[in-house]
Amino acid sequence: MKKDANKKNKNIHQIFGLNGSLNLLEYYKKKIRRVDIMNGGVAERKMSTKQLQKTNFFPVHRLSKDQFLKKYSGKRTQGIVVTFESNIAQNLPSFNSSKNNECLLVIDSLEDPQNLGQIIRTAECANITGLLLPEHQSVQLTDSVLQVSQGAFIHLPIFRCGNLHQQLRNLKKEGFWIIGVENSIKAMQWHQLDYNRKVVLVMGSEGKGIRPVIIKACDELVTISMRGRINSLNVSSAVSAILFERQRQVKL
Amino acid sequence: MKKDANKKNKNIHQIFGLNGSLNLLEYYKKKIRRVDIMNGGVAERKMSTKQLQKTNFFPVHRLSKDQFLKKYSGKRTQGIVVTFESNIAQNLPSFNSSKNNECLLVIDSLEDPQNLGQIIRTAECANITGLLLPEHQSVQLTDSVLQVSQGAFIHLPIFRCGNLHQQLRNLKKEGFWIIGVENSIKAMQWHQLDYNRKVVLVMGSEGKGIRPVIIKACDELVTISMRGRINSLNVSSAVSAILFERQRQVKL
Repeated sequence: MKKDANKKNKNIHQIFGLNGSLNLLEYYKKKIRRVDIMNGGVAERKMSTKQLQKTNFFPVHRLSKDQFLKKYSGKRTQGIVVTFESNIAQNLPSFNSSKNNECLLVIDSLEDPQNLGQIIRTAECANITGLLLPEHQSVQLTDSVLQVSQGAFIHLPIFRCGNLHQQLRNLKKEGFWIIGVENSIKAMQWHQLDYNRKVVLVMGSEGKGIRPVIIKACDELVTISMRGRINSLNVSSAVSAILFERQRQVKL
Repeated sequence: MKKDANKKNKNIHQIFGLNGSLNLLEYYKKKIRRVDIMNGGVAERKMSTKQLQKTNFFPVHRLSKDQFLKKYSGKRTQGIVVTFESNIAQNLPSFNSSKNNECLLVIDSLEDPQNLGQIIRTAECANITGLLLPEHQSVQLTDSVLQVSQGAFIHLPIFRCGNLHQQLRNLKKEGFWIIGVENSIKAMQWHQLDYNRKVVLVMGSEGKGIRPVIIKACDELVTISMRGRINSLNVSSAVSAILFERQRQVKL
C-alpha cells in the first residue's frame, strides 16, 4: 500500500510511544499493520524480552536511528510507532434490556483534540458504558486524540452519533435519563443527582455550553458550582469531577 | 528595555488571548508593562467599548496586522498580547492561627506544563487555599503554564517551596494533616477521607507516583480506585476528582 493510499483510509491510525504501543500490541493484534522500532531507542531498551518476543508476530521494521528520526521527525515517539487499521467508533447498540447503571457521556460541540483525548482516558478509568461521539460539529478521532487518550480508546466503547437530539430521544425511550451538566445555572449540585440508574450525561464544550435545543431535551440539569473567581473549569476536569462522583455513588 | 534584557528577567511574562488578557488588565493593573493589540483582530472586535477604554491606562501599542503577526508568528493570540512583570510565586505564610478548612495542594515531581496549568485552573475553581510549588524537580511557572491556566494564576495563591519534605514537617506543626494520594495502593477511597480539617494533599506526578521519602511523611494515604483497564488517570483529572469531592464535603 502506498503512503498516499494510507492517508486516504481514515481507518488507518498511528500511535507513538511505549505505553500506547504496548496496549495496541496486546489488544489490537489483528489490526496491526506495521511496527517501527528504532535501534537503540527508549522502547527497545525498556521493553522486556517477553514484550520484544511478542512483536515477532507483527510486521516489525527495525530502523537505524537516522532512518527512524527522518521518518518521524519532530514527534515524541520513544523509538516506537505502531500503525493499525481500525474503525474505532461503533454503532450504538440497543440498551433496551440492559442493566440499571449504564452511563453514557456526550460532549456537545467539542472542539479541542486534547480535551477529547483526556475525556476518553478519564471515562475509561471511571469505567462508564461508553462515549457518544457526534459526527458533526465535533472534533473526531484523530491520531492526536488517540495519542492523548494513552490507549484508553482501545477499551472504552465509542459510539457514532448522527443527530444528537434524535439520539437522545431514542435513548430516553430505552429507559435513560438525560442529564445536562451546565456551568453557572440555578440547578441542583452535581453530587445531589442520583447516578444509580441509566443516565446519559450531556456536557457543554469549551466556553460555549450546551446548545439550547439539547438543553430542552434534558430531563434534569445539574451544575458544578465554582467557588473561585475565574468560574471556568476545563471540560475534561468537569468530566472527571462528575464521573468520579458517579463512581462514589454506584457500588459495584 | 531591550528585548534581551526582558528575557533575562524571570518575572517578565507574556499572556496571549482575550480571556487571559482581560483578567490581567482587571486584576494586575500595576504590573502591566505593555499591551499589543492587532488592528482588526479578534480582540479588538470582541472587546466592549468599556474594555477598550480601560486599556487607555496601560502602555498600549496598536500594531498593523503585518507587524503583529511578524512579532507573534505561530502563536494563537486572538490579536492581543499582554506583557507583565510579577513575581507570581509567594513565600508560604504561617497558618498557625488559620481556620479549620485550609487546603494546600502539592504535586511531587510534576514535569508537564500542560498539567500544571490545568491544575492551577482546577484548584482556583475549587477555591482551595493554595498550591505549593517545589523549586526543584518540578516544572516552573513558564508562560505556557500561565497560558493554560486561563488567568487562574492571578487568583490562586502559589507558594514557593524549597525542600518539600521539610516543608511538610513544618506544616504538620501548624496543624495540617498530610494526605498522600496514590494510584493502585491498598488504602481508603478518596471519598472516605474527612476533608473538614486542615489538609495538605500530596499527589504523584505522571506515571511515577510520590517519592518514598514523601510517602513516609504522610499521615494518611488515599487512592482513587480505577475500574477500567488502563488504570492511569491523568494527574490533572485526579486533582479534579479529589478537589471536588472536598468541595462536596466542605460546606461554606
